[in-house]
Amino acid sequence: MSLITPKIAKLLNEKNFASFATTMPDGSPQVSPVWVDYDGSLILINTAKGRIKEKNVKNNGKVALSIFDMNNPYEMATIRGTIMQQTTEGADDHIDKMTKKYLNLERYPFRKSNETRLILKINPEKVFHMSIPINDFLQK
Amino acid sequence: MSLITPKIAKLLNEKNFASFATTMPDGSPQVSPVWVDYDGSLILINTAKGRIKEKNVKNNGKVALSIFDMNNPYEMATIRGTIMQQTTEGADDHIDKMTKKYLNLERYPFRKSNETRLILKINPEKVFHMSIPINDFLQK
Repeated sequence: MSLITPKIAKLLNEKNFASFATTMPDGSPQVSPVWVDYDGSLILINTAKGRIKEKNVKNNGKVALSIFDMNNPYEMATIRGTIMQQTTEGADDHIDKMTKKYLNLERYPFRKSNETRLILKINPEKVFHMSIPINDFLQK
Repeated sequence: MSLITPKIAKLLNEKNFASFATTMPDGSPQVSPVWVDYDGSLILINTAKGRIKEKNVKNNGKVALSIFDMNNPYEMATIRGTIMQQTTEGADDHIDKMTKKYLNLERYPFRKSNETRLILKINPEKVFHMSIPINDFLQK
């Protein structure tokens, strides 16, 4: 049974940016906006070798994500988990797939020739979903 | 000289949600969507006593934020810093001020009688701003 409920899956599958948190070598947190993918079991982030995120998860595979509906941020989820796999295999195709989702383009337009793409596969271990019926409050 | 450039200040001052990252007792990261305020020098988050964020920053005052323009997420910033002050003083008024910004209501509508509000004041120490001219890519 996945911890990812249908409502959280919806947030991940729609065109929302996630915020991806890792831990710096000194133990402090780092967080940045990312595209996100969900394969029905694991959460996938596509980064590039040598970036801060990749360096951090080499040291500490514990990561966290938050995500909200960009049209209604009062519908949100937070996820904590562990990187189960890091792979360059299929990572170029995967960034093209994410490009289709987020930009409706066939090919990733920011590709750099000296860059090796990398997929981080995250097993969700703690999830929290919150949905505030914001219109009820606004109409009072 | 503040590290917060006018473009980052704009992201903080507009109605964008931030994602606020702290460190769990076991050293893993935690991140959640938050309202955010900027006083021209420090970044302010309004939380409540007993919440995961407050517990975490008691142990480790190093925190991180990411923020993007919710109408154009390719305009984004990441911030790392340290909690300089935690105060309950003025925290109820401050959450009302944030309510005005985010919901255009005079009073915080989610107030719980048993909750003590707390302002976390963050000194930004590392900032990164990125602005991708996304329309140039989409029009190709």
